[in-house]
Amino acid sequence: MPSYTAPTKDMSFLLHEVLKVEDSGIPGYEELAPDFTGAVLEEAGKIASQVLAPLNVVGDKEGCKLENGVVRVPTGFQDAFNQVRDGGWTGIDCDPEYGGQGMPNIIGTMVGEMFSGANQSFTMYQGLTHGAQSAIHVHGTDEQKAKFLPKMITCEWTGTMNLTESHCGTDLGLMRTKAVPQDDGSYKITGEKIFISAGEHEMSDNIIHLVLAKIPGGPEGIKGVSLFIVPKFKVNDDGSVGAANGVTCGNIEEKMGIHGNSTCVMVYNEAEGYLLGEMHKGMRAMFTMMNEARLGVGMQGLAQAEVAYQNAVIYAKDRLQGRAVTGVENPDGPADPLIVHPDIRRSLLDQKSFVEGARAFLLWGAALIDQAHLNNDKDADGLVSLMTPVIKGFMTDKGYDMTVQAQQIYGGHGYIEEWGMSQFTRDARITMIYEGANGVQALDLVGRKLSSGGGKYVMAFFDLVKDFIKENKDVDGMQDFTDPLKQASKDLQAAGMFFMQNGMKNPNEALAGSYDFMHMFGHVCLGLMWGRMAKASLEALKNGAGDTAFYETKLKTGRYYMARQLPATGMHLARIQSGADVVMGLDADNF
Amino acid sequence: MPSYTAPTKDMSFLLHEVLKVEDSGIPGYEELAPDFTGAVLEEAGKIASQVLAPLNVVGDKEGCKLENGVVRVPTGFQDAFNQVRDGGWTGIDCDPEYGGQGMPNIIGTMVGEMFSGANQSFTMYQGLTHGAQSAIHVHGTDEQKAKFLPKMITCEWTGTMNLTESHCGTDLGLMRTKAVPQDDGSYKITGEKIFISAGEHEMSDNIIHLVLAKIPGGPEGIKGVSLFIVPKFKVNDDGSVGAANGVTCGNIEEKMGIHGNSTCVMVYNEAEGYLLGEMHKGMRAMFTMMNEARLGVGMQGLAQAEVAYQNAVIYAKDRLQGRAVTGVENPDGPADPLIVHPDIRRSLLDQKSFVEGARAFLLWGAALIDQAHLNNDKDADGLVSLMTPVIKGFMTDKGYDMTVQAQQIYGGHGYIEEWGMSQFTRDARITMIYEGANGVQALDLVGRKLSSGGGKYVMAFFDLVKDFIKENKDVDGMQDFTDPLKQASKDLQAAGMFFMQNGMKNPNEALAGSYDFMHMFGHVCLGLMWGRMAKASLEALKNGAGDTAFYETKLKTGRYYMARQLPATGMHLARIQSGADVVMGLDADNF
Repeated sequence: MPSYTAPTKDMSFLLHEVLKVEDSGIPGYEELAPDFTGAVLEEAGKIASQVLAPLNVVGDKEGCKLENGVVRVPTGFQDAFNQVRDGGWTGIDCDPEYGGQGMPNIIGTMVGEMFSGANQSFTMYQGLTHGAQSAIHVHGTDEQKAKFLPKMITCEWTGTMNLTESHCGTDLGLMRTKAVPQDDGSYKITGEKIFISAGEHEMSDNIIHLVLAKIPGGPEGIKGVSLFIVPKFKVNDDGSVGAANGVTCGNIEEKMGIHGNSTCVMVYNEAEGYLLGEMHKGMRAMFTMMNEARLGVGMQGLAQAEVAYQNAVIYAKDRLQGRAVTGVENPDGPADPLIVHPDIRRSLLDQKSFVEGARAFLLWGAALIDQAHLNNDKDADGLVSLMTPVIKGFMTDKGYDMTVQAQQIYGGHGYIEEWGMSQFTRDARITMIYEGANGVQALDLVGRKLSSGGGKYVMAFFDLVKDFIKENKDVDGMQDFTDPLKQASKDLQAAGMFFMQNGMKNPNEALAGSYDFMHMFGHVCLGLMWGRMAKASLEALKNGAGDTAFYETKLKTGRYYMARQLPATGMHLARIQSGADVVMGLDADNF
Repeated sequence: MPSYTAPTKDMSFLLHEVLKVEDSGIPGYEELAPDFTGAVLEEAGKIASQVLAPLNVVGDKEGCKLENGVVRVPTGFQDAFNQVRDGGWTGIDCDPEYGGQGMPNIIGTMVGEMFSGANQSFTMYQGLTHGAQSAIHVHGTDEQKAKFLPKMITCEWTGTMNLTESHCGTDLGLMRTKAVPQDDGSYKITGEKIFISAGEHEMSDNIIHLVLAKIPGGPEGIKGVSLFIVPKFKVNDDGSVGAANGVTCGNIEEKMGIHGNSTCVMVYNEAEGYLLGEMHKGMRAMFTMMNEARLGVGMQGLAQAEVAYQNAVIYAKDRLQGRAVTGVENPDGPADPLIVHPDIRRSLLDQKSFVEGARAFLLWGAALIDQAHLNNDKDADGLVSLMTPVIKGFMTDKGYDMTVQAQQIYGGHGYIEEWGMSQFTRDARITMIYEGANGVQALDLVGRKLSSGGGKYVMAFFDLVKDFIKENKDVDGMQDFTDPLKQASKDLQAAGMFFMQNGMKNPNEALAGSYDFMHMFGHVCLGLMWGRMAKASLEALKNGAGDTAFYETKLKTGRYYMARQLPATGMHLARIQSGADVVMGLDADNF
């Protein structure tokens, strides 16, 4: 059975040596001393590896079952959920006013990565709840907040988000679910929603569904969509759980993976709901959840790649097969371990250099969110908004690829469910799809985010890269990083220029290259992250830091990324510059 | 439920307009007139789409079950197997002396693609049998051939190949299965083999296992391995099925996909076996199966990509979501079909341009095999041997990627088993692993095939490409093909040069780039194929061929491949030229 080890050392390095959180000037970050973060990470890591990881295969094998309207979660999930709840992990970065622990988002992100890496299906129950409570926290009335937040922060009540209907996913303007106003100010919600993660189960006393619906007579399409709070059980005035509401689970889906999470068809039949935020501005409120969820999904892509990589390394060191071409390395054994073979290393380094770069990227994003929220910094907000589709799209595409590569290390054993590597691939596959399929992320990036603020955020991004190169290109040892980064950034700018010059006349010129652009952007971000990590490592070595192997390995892993991953930007640029005609030229009938 | 439509038109185009089989001078090819091949393809296509495709989901859902030593195949498999058998499809390209239909390999390959595309798990039962009968045909004694071939060609008896043991896959020298010589010239085989596809089932009267084992006292390692015929039931002198042999199915594996095929642990307990080919030369005999199997697996990669693509197109035309950015295209509907969106087209064209290019590549390979065997052409044999790891490795890597892309078109529905797209991905995943994991293919290509015949085959390949470019670069309309092909071929040669210059001193310099080289090689091959297809299409249009849409679509699809796929060679070259140090520099402990 696969194992999971929390990458606490890497996280500490990122916090304290790369991001230097204590000196960042973000309110609350001054408390993030190494002793403190180390203790938090260690405790979370224990939960992840000892409580959640052993249930990952169980969840996959047993799945969730709908029996007489009741969803049974896999064996052990309830106990583990209680442990996570009792440890206060569910509200770690939530508002203390409502019972949260008030730590910054960056801490919640690291804990989320560990929990997701150990058990994605399980962690989704609390992840969805977190997103729902955020939406209520931002858009709810004081009364709504007082009523729902304390219980959701502790996961006594869990949450869901209900967007998709069978005929509409991306294009939510087509939705049919109705919300009819009642005299008491509430609404009666009627309709059917699909793909509702954690939609029904009995691990919590109540489930707070956030549901998009249309109020009859409102504007057509997406402009007539509002968001509603629809609890599974109505909540009495004293806060206790009351009568059942008109919402049932119609079915649970059989999926490729994440079997431990109940993906439900939810049927609303005149269910009592309460408007959350403004009427007809439901998408705005939902996007509070969506943006958080998108970063969370990018994190899941990384997390699955990390755990798959860890287990690939274990196997590559353990499995004896063939001899090193440069001479026997394990003379006492019948063969050498797989890890002596260059192509095995090529694959492992693809994985290692991705996960470490991606983690830096994710935590940088988390720090920007904290900076945006806690310092009310609009530029930070603009920058992280720009990068959100990249974190989601690039990190899940690559994260999935890495689970496939990790599975490949196992040869035939990777294809057998017994070894657990197939599950990482099957679970990771959903991350490319949910919370906006990756093609939609690319569209969001190129069609919306690039021009956001008149292009000022993307220009700020390029300036960041440029400044980094300028500051470091003459530092000893940094040229392995700054030279490739310069080239990759140049490619990315050339692609942006191509869009500007051609996309005005014909938007397809930009959109036909959107997916490639998202990947280029991801590579430049990871290249920048590797540059920063290299710089921190060189400084540590110069200052005589103890663990030289750690920093030297960082530098070597980073050089691998720069040498072997960044050249992808040239390919993406060539694809983009070939223009829209090759993409749009076929009649639909000729596909 | 997904559907399958046999790509007969594309196959006819390749046979008669690109490969021009009737004029090729290969014995038997003169009979491949369009009327004849059209009839064969049409009939095979009917079996594929009407008999096999409807059982694909059934096979996935039911899987194979081991009950009291008996393996139950999914509902409907036996009936379908009888139909395929009765139609003579199992021996279509087998020796008429033993009851085969004697058609060339290229016909068998096309039928194989259709059957595999419709139902990979099902088709493996006959595919493995075909490989086993080939090995007996080439290496067996007259008596063995007379005894086994007629029944195997009709699939009254099926066959298997037994290589892997739990502790050894690629490194077969480690195997422990023993073959003890008996006085009557037979051997007693004892040991346990794993991952035996079609290892046990009751669809045939007997199962002829080909088993690698070591004769005690023979040379150490791989040089002491011999190949044995071990029937499930011993065969009486009159050819009838006799007593049970000492072979049982110990277990069947739970796998990520190909659930309809029984992947067995086979336990040999003093089973009676007969040496096939020479003692201690078992690998040579097994490689007859392996080479055939590797091409067959490359074909499976293509086949899964084809069927996944077909269903992605259906969905993209049917599913209404969003509006075209350049103006509404479906004003009477609530939204436009997915296929209006540039990124959907980008994905569909990645798929379409791959499957059509890969099919041309596969059939070119099949024609080379016919040329090698039927015209005893050693150069053709050398060329197809060189390309075999590319057909296997590149076509299954890309084939798998394309199933993932096709699944992605479905959004959330792609992740739900109900829609069938997940199965294509899960089934295709094995093709990257079995018959030599793709890393082993890359090793075979760079470590063995490149230098084969003193490098004469790879030089012949480059000459082919060069000659094609020279002949066509000034032909109107061909520059979209010859220019990118020239650049890609130049990149490939530069990579080969890098290996030559650096690999002598340090073989890791070559092996650390082997995987990238395999992919570059694949792109150049598909680029050449697209060049040939473009040429045939331009000629057809010039000659006033009727179906202009077909030829124009070919040209457009080809231009897409050249513009958007061939630039990958530059990235692979950069990766290769970054050298072995970035790959080999880490101590194993630091992964």
